[in-house]
Amino acid sequence: MARLTQNELVRGLSAIVGPSHVSTSRPDRIAYSADFWPKAQIWKMGGDIDRFPPDCVAWPGTFDETRDLLRFCHEHQVPVVPYGGGSGVCGGTVPIRGGVVVDVKRMRKVTAVDPISMTVTVEAGCNGQHLEDALNAQGFTLGHFPSSIMCSTVGGWLAARSSGQFSSKYGKIEDMVLGMEVAFPTGELLDTRFRMPGAPDWTQLIVGSEGTLGLILSAELKIRPLPEARRFRAWRFRRLEDGFRGMRALMQTGLHPIVLRLYDPFDSLIALGKEHEDPGAKEEGPLGALRNILSNATLGPRAKVSAALSPMTHAAKKTAQRLALQSGLSVPALTNRLANAAPSPCLMITGFEGAEAEVARDAFSSSEVLLREGGQDAGSRLGEAWLEKRYAVGFKQTKMMNLGAWVDTMEVATTWDRLDTLYRRVREAVTPNAFIMAHFSHAYREGCSIYFTFAGYRKDATRAEQHYERTWERAIDATLEVGATLSHHHGVGLHKMSGMMREHGGMVRAWRALKAALDPHGIMNPGKLFPDEVVEVDHDAMAEMDLGPSAP
Amino acid sequence: MARLTQNELVRGLSAIVGPSHVSTSRPDRIAYSADFWPKAQIWKMGGDIDRFPPDCVAWPGTFDETRDLLRFCHEHQVPVVPYGGGSGVCGGTVPIRGGVVVDVKRMRKVTAVDPISMTVTVEAGCNGQHLEDALNAQGFTLGHFPSSIMCSTVGGWLAARSSGQFSSKYGKIEDMVLGMEVAFPTGELLDTRFRMPGAPDWTQLIVGSEGTLGLILSAELKIRPLPEARRFRAWRFRRLEDGFRGMRALMQTGLHPIVLRLYDPFDSLIALGKEHEDPGAKEEGPLGALRNILSNATLGPRAKVSAALSPMTHAAKKTAQRLALQSGLSVPALTNRLANAAPSPCLMITGFEGAEAEVARDAFSSSEVLLREGGQDAGSRLGEAWLEKRYAVGFKQTKMMNLGAWVDTMEVATTWDRLDTLYRRVREAVTPNAFIMAHFSHAYREGCSIYFTFAGYRKDATRAEQHYERTWERAIDATLEVGATLSHHHGVGLHKMSGMMREHGGMVRAWRALKAALDPHGIMNPGKLFPDEVVEVDHDAMAEMDLGPSAP
Repeated sequence: MARLTQNELVRGLSAIVGPSHVSTSRPDRIAYSADFWPKAQIWKMGGDIDRFPPDCVAWPGTFDETRDLLRFCHEHQVPVVPYGGGSGVCGGTVPIRGGVVVDVKRMRKVTAVDPISMTVTVEAGCNGQHLEDALNAQGFTLGHFPSSIMCSTVGGWLAARSSGQFSSKYGKIEDMVLGMEVAFPTGELLDTRFRMPGAPDWTQLIVGSEGTLGLILSAELKIRPLPEARRFRAWRFRRLEDGFRGMRALMQTGLHPIVLRLYDPFDSLIALGKEHEDPGAKEEGPLGALRNILSNATLGPRAKVSAALSPMTHAAKKTAQRLALQSGLSVPALTNRLANAAPSPCLMITGFEGAEAEVARDAFSSSEVLLREGGQDAGSRLGEAWLEKRYAVGFKQTKMMNLGAWVDTMEVATTWDRLDTLYRRVREAVTPNAFIMAHFSHAYREGCSIYFTFAGYRKDATRAEQHYERTWERAIDATLEVGATLSHHHGVGLHKMSGMMREHGGMVRAWRALKAALDPHGIMNPGKLFPDEVVEVDHDAMAEMDLGPSAP
Repeated sequence: MARLTQNELVRGLSAIVGPSHVSTSRPDRIAYSADFWPKAQIWKMGGDIDRFPPDCVAWPGTFDETRDLLRFCHEHQVPVVPYGGGSGVCGGTVPIRGGVVVDVKRMRKVTAVDPISMTVTVEAGCNGQHLEDALNAQGFTLGHFPSSIMCSTVGGWLAARSSGQFSSKYGKIEDMVLGMEVAFPTGELLDTRFRMPGAPDWTQLIVGSEGTLGLILSAELKIRPLPEARRFRAWRFRRLEDGFRGMRALMQTGLHPIVLRLYDPFDSLIALGKEHEDPGAKEEGPLGALRNILSNATLGPRAKVSAALSPMTHAAKKTAQRLALQSGLSVPALTNRLANAAPSPCLMITGFEGAEAEVARDAFSSSEVLLREGGQDAGSRLGEAWLEKRYAVGFKQTKMMNLGAWVDTMEVATTWDRLDTLYRRVREAVTPNAFIMAHFSHAYREGCSIYFTFAGYRKDATRAEQHYERTWERAIDATLEVGATLSHHHGVGLHKMSGMMREHGGMVRAWRALKAALDPHGIMNPGKLFPDEVVEVDHDAMAEMDLGPSAP
């Protein structure tokens, strides 16, 4: 079948969703050409602002429109990339084969809150914070608080197997979902709502499939009553190993903290900035610059006020900061050594919520456990400071990028017996190459995830991209050698695709067979998860496209 | 390719597992021709003792032997039915296409207990009680107590998505499994151990696949420390609806009982027999007979002693019992009405375990909740009586069968908002046809499963089988109309296959594609789960087989 011309495509889609809900405008195509994947940010910083633009963007308003759109694209073999908030950090929504980006945010109703079964039915395009607000108004909470909550959607959470900051109590999104409605390009509809888990568990197969099998229309999720009380606290551990042991003991005692996080020495400084004051730490030099940029303190109103009052001084400070940062990241092995030598203890944050009496009791029990494992009480103020600033860290990437550096995070997971090995091996692998720090969050009875932050600097975008890739290759190799899971909650996207294929081995073939059955023309987010061949892009096809204004 | 002769098959398998670990003997082939599926029991009662015998039985001793065996069968297109304890109640292991039943019970080692990550690695053939004993000896428990625990295996639990009696706290087997080693007929091996959950979640796809994709070799399961204390209690609710509300309130309060079960009026009498005395209930007549046969009281030592002392009286009593039972089950609508009219309250059992203080506290909190919802404290003695007799009920089927009746159980599940509708609709559908009672166990925050017991009587096996099938058709239709899940923890087998195909709709096609990729010749437990065509049996192929003694 001949490929549709752009006009034919736009005409066809307009007939389904209405002409005002289809766009081929250049700004739209640029906006939908990438998500928050740092590698795509490197492209942009180098001037390559739309490496993978879609042919067009469509905004269906109903499930029926969406199903018709999928059938149309199936019939004409047009690639479809489902799109929620675009907050992914792995390139999952980058339309590398062009086609239509289907933004689902017009379908955002909270359809039903069931106070009997304690569930909410919600459309895929609903913004995370909007859902939480709607639930709060009725006395409920979802308990899902990813740091992207203000710019991510329910559909995106499910597609990428998202985890929130309170997952130790409430679980990951795959633990919260009871069922979904999913549309497939063949016109079929899967509806697993109102059913309790049975086999085969299709819900769990769609969760994490990143739009490669079908498009999630809506979901039924478990909800909880709003807690009466919340209590946060901070702890200091002299050695990271003691902190591990404390986390493990706490989870295995059967306590259910909403938050349990342990920071390695340098990440401890970053996490709470000046709040976690250490008189021995130097403010100046490469480490000080890194800390100033990454830590919350620099985001405070004081810094903004000083910048407003004294633009000249502020500009000079900026330059000094940039130079210090660049020099620090140019010699990562040294910077890592300095960071390790910093006399900072490891910070832990604990949080409990629920009925007043339950929270008081569990907080007390957790104190007993942590004191026994060598923890020192660092008071509630630091704990509450963490809570206030818990979404801030994700928004610092751009700041770093503006200073010429790249920064990324890697969330891997394994059982407790291998956690220390995983931490050390990844550090050893990355240390010569890039600055690295880590914290331990999303704890379970049987194990925990590690959230590494990498940062690097290279003068131009091409070299920065190579440096970024080399760093990741080392980190991925080390993770797979330990036998850990490569993706705990950020998804796979373009970023971890080859690593995931190594992790999944022979099952990749099974996945492809399944995909071929559900999406026979391979139109759903093509080139992602486990593609037959990893083709970077169809540049020629793109070049042929007219980047003119929006069609009829 | 020509089908192997029996001699060629036995020679091939003997070369892999050793001649003493292959059998074609008639007793073995009869023994492995059925599991505990009541329909197969009806066949046996009618004299049809080996409707679906395998061509032979093999007992591999190692993972390598098992993989070689699978490859051999793949090459020669010989059906393979993985077999653990044979305690399934849905016909999952009935070798309807002949071939080799692969009994995995020689592979039964508890390979490793990891006290750090709190996991156990265990081979698939390990008996459930043996695993629990081994864990107990080291101070741990799995927390998985299906009533088949004495005659089921870890591999069988995983293959059928088993649930234990303490699932409200510890979860179903799919919640306990971290990873598995699975052998496929193509020679591939899937090893998901030591990984934390990621996507796609192969572990959850294999759990519940009933041997149709691959053969489970071993699993890594989560374990817990042995509890310090346990506390059981019984409650009475005047109306079933109050009991529902109590269960729901208890689960949604965030308490974690190990046991939370509610019995409808007649099942309340059955569950605890004479312990749950009600002076108004008559011992004689059809209801009395049913109660006597089904209730635990009749299994007590007193009954056995009286039978030994007075065989004549015992025989006369038996005859009376049989007649009463048959007459009761011949008029199910009337018997159901009598059972409903019995002035018996609904019994609830609660149980907590853990640290001493925690158990005391949670038991107290649960009392507050249940009293508020209209429960009356029925003391701890009845609760403990339930605990003592918790495995007994599954062993009464044979007793009923011996009296000429059939009995079966159906475990369905749905969310709380539909639970009462599900209960009523299934009762309405079955009431004219068979005796029916139910209890509610395996409670979740969002819903609960219902465990129905059906009983019927027809004079001869053919009519009994038809009656059995008609009863099930009505029950399945009612369940699917409410939108509930047809199989909560008994699996699918041959029994619920057509109902499950209706439940899973268009996804059946996806499943078949997946199976074709992993098992290209379709040798793994053929004709089960979602077969291309539901063929009952290849009788002719069977007839050709020599039913002689064990080969070389």
